[in-house]
Amino acid sequence: MTFIEGGVCAPAGFTANGVLCGIKKGRTKNDLALIESEVPCSAAAVFTKNLVKAEPVKLTKKHIANGAAQAIVANSGNANACTGEQGYANAERTAELAASLLGLNTEDVLVCSTGVIGQQINIGAIESGMEALCEGLSKSGNAAAREAIMTTDTKHKETAVEFELGGKKARIGTMAKGSGMIHINMGTMLGFITTDAAITPKMLDAALRESADQTYNCVSVDGDTSTNDTLCALANGLAGNPLIASKNADYRAFVSALNAVNTRMARMIAADGEGATHLLECVVNGAKSAEAARNLAKAVISSSLVKAAFFGKDANWGRILCAMGYSGEHFSQEGTSVFFDSGAGEIEVFHNGVPLDFDEPKAKEILGETEVKIRIELKDGKENGTAWGCDLTYDYVKINGDYRT
Amino acid sequence: MTFIEGGVCAPAGFTANGVLCGIKKGRTKNDLALIESEVPCSAAAVFTKNLVKAEPVKLTKKHIANGAAQAIVANSGNANACTGEQGYANAERTAELAASLLGLNTEDVLVCSTGVIGQQINIGAIESGMEALCEGLSKSGNAAAREAIMTTDTKHKETAVEFELGGKKARIGTMAKGSGMIHINMGTMLGFITTDAAITPKMLDAALRESADQTYNCVSVDGDTSTNDTLCALANGLAGNPLIASKNADYRAFVSALNAVNTRMARMIAADGEGATHLLECVVNGAKSAEAARNLAKAVISSSLVKAAFFGKDANWGRILCAMGYSGEHFSQEGTSVFFDSGAGEIEVFHNGVPLDFDEPKAKEILGETEVKIRIELKDGKENGTAWGCDLTYDYVKINGDYRT
Repeated sequence: MTFIEGGVCAPAGFTANGVLCGIKKGRTKNDLALIESEVPCSAAAVFTKNLVKAEPVKLTKKHIANGAAQAIVANSGNANACTGEQGYANAERTAELAASLLGLNTEDVLVCSTGVIGQQINIGAIESGMEALCEGLSKSGNAAAREAIMTTDTKHKETAVEFELGGKKARIGTMAKGSGMIHINMGTMLGFITTDAAITPKMLDAALRESADQTYNCVSVDGDTSTNDTLCALANGLAGNPLIASKNADYRAFVSALNAVNTRMARMIAADGEGATHLLECVVNGAKSAEAARNLAKAVISSSLVKAAFFGKDANWGRILCAMGYSGEHFSQEGTSVFFDSGAGEIEVFHNGVPLDFDEPKAKEILGETEVKIRIELKDGKENGTAWGCDLTYDYVKINGDYRT
Repeated sequence: MTFIEGGVCAPAGFTANGVLCGIKKGRTKNDLALIESEVPCSAAAVFTKNLVKAEPVKLTKKHIANGAAQAIVANSGNANACTGEQGYANAERTAELAASLLGLNTEDVLVCSTGVIGQQINIGAIESGMEALCEGLSKSGNAAAREAIMTTDTKHKETAVEFELGGKKARIGTMAKGSGMIHINMGTMLGFITTDAAITPKMLDAALRESADQTYNCVSVDGDTSTNDTLCALANGLAGNPLIASKNADYRAFVSALNAVNTRMARMIAADGEGATHLLECVVNGAKSAEAARNLAKAVISSSLVKAAFFGKDANWGRILCAMGYSGEHFSQEGTSVFFDSGAGEIEVFHNGVPLDFDEPKAKEILGETEVKIRIELKDGKENGTAWGCDLTYDYVKINGDYRT
């Protein structure tokens, strides 16, 4: 498996585009994105677990129910959430517009939105931009598209891989937005995956859920699960591999490639969390189950106190034990050891349940790096898990103290 | 029922004291507190739900198992958590020292600690300060005691009430510390309640749990449940009321007085959350159950995004709906209305599921006050609930970026 360029346009048969249509006043980046496959696709999606679901989430759930889709329209600048019937009609209008210009059925167009909650979306702007959006679709349109879904993201997020599948070369490409209102029940607001692998909707759905649990669902920026979180996958089958219709060896190869792209995206989202200065990766080894390992790791990277300590480069491991203690998972404190690890080296701070008298300047140096790993060794079993987060900074507060106005 | 002065010393038969013994280098406030009753007490406590429990929590659980106690020793500057056998021995030594100087059984002394996790406590300092601590016990010692449990608290927290109980005047007094590492499973680190009411240990325990669920367990500062949270109550019976041994009318009167002091403390803790500039009170009316109302209110005041918005005086009510949506409670969005309310007036921002076009400058004025109420009206039932929190500020990050070193 090798990482390649091209993002969502890397797999055969996918094109994309992005335009600035003016949904939110003052924005200078693109705000409307489109991804299309030249042929119909197997489609699967996982959505926010928030009871308050945005209108486009409701629409996309309906459109994807048959396991088929061919295009995705996504906008930033307005979440179209808590907007009632008018909001739903606007999401539907967006799908209809794209479908008529692309010659598709409205039901084969998925719609995703991100931005401020509780304001009606500027549907006039979307109407005015849709024609240019559809006409400009191209094999290099991933760059324009990935920009259009950014909100407080400081960096665009995309990746792609090429891998062997049933004797054929297959590709998976993806783009996502992250930044804030991100928690472990769907650790992203929007993520789009394209692939030319041939896979049934049912197996695509299984693969997406399996992979999301180990990747997107292990990211937290601020503990808030948004109203709009959506991770969609479209598979058009143009790679020509034997159709994956069961959990066979090809399915495993597909999931493995999917995990590779999703893990990379999860790390990007955490690293670019609102205001973040450090990517925190917490690895728990020796747990009694993979789920326990992930839950412990998630509790650690979700703790405001742990996050603030890393901002201050303070090796305050007591807060890590504290977070593990309220994770809801049982573990043996006596068998627990904690290490900090980065490009500047590794240091153990807690060994088999006993505090160590460690080298403070060395620890500060290790925590001074941009990417820091918290490694927790347990003696409860053989399972491992990883979660990703970021530090809590002045800038997080600044960004969110005045986001809407 | 009337609020009175005197804190934990207000009830008959209770004295207190606090000294500076030097547990943490550089501290100039008292760091060791003692509360004693002149006669044996019914005793009850609720503890942190964190799996990682501090050593004094383990000791106090053991000492209080028989429902009796007569004194409480508490220190700040060190949590004595994650410190293993040596830590437990130090907690035990603290109880022994106090017991021998006060002429009590060691088992009748409770021990509570707060401060940094993972460092052995300076037991020498405690040994050196204990004699002065015990000798200085007095009826006005509540001022010295309340200071000794403060960590990053900027204000001391105490209150007391006088009320009628079975034809006698009874009193309840309390002091607590709050500030950080505070979440809804015991929304405080340390809280001490004294009363001269006559009540059995079993009824005291029931009253304490019932009241804590509506008060301390409805406070969140940062979503972190600490390793040391303890709320203890001592009842010495000197009020002379008929012993409360069942859930009769006197029990209800006692719980009502207990709720009054605990609610006041919950508000003080939230208002003095680390770095806080606003007290946030979220009231949910019209819920299907009191528990649902409280859970919705807790989700709102626990959201980092809601908290940051209030810091910025931004009437971003979408984040409130978002937090309600992931609270785990079902509610009808169509029947939901949201109001902001403070000394500067009241404004409705969301009415029966529909966004309102409200007066932004007026909203900013309302959110500019130190105490702000978020009132949520549902149409799901007749039950109500309240939770307390604070805003998320630069200072929270600053305080916690470098707390340990």
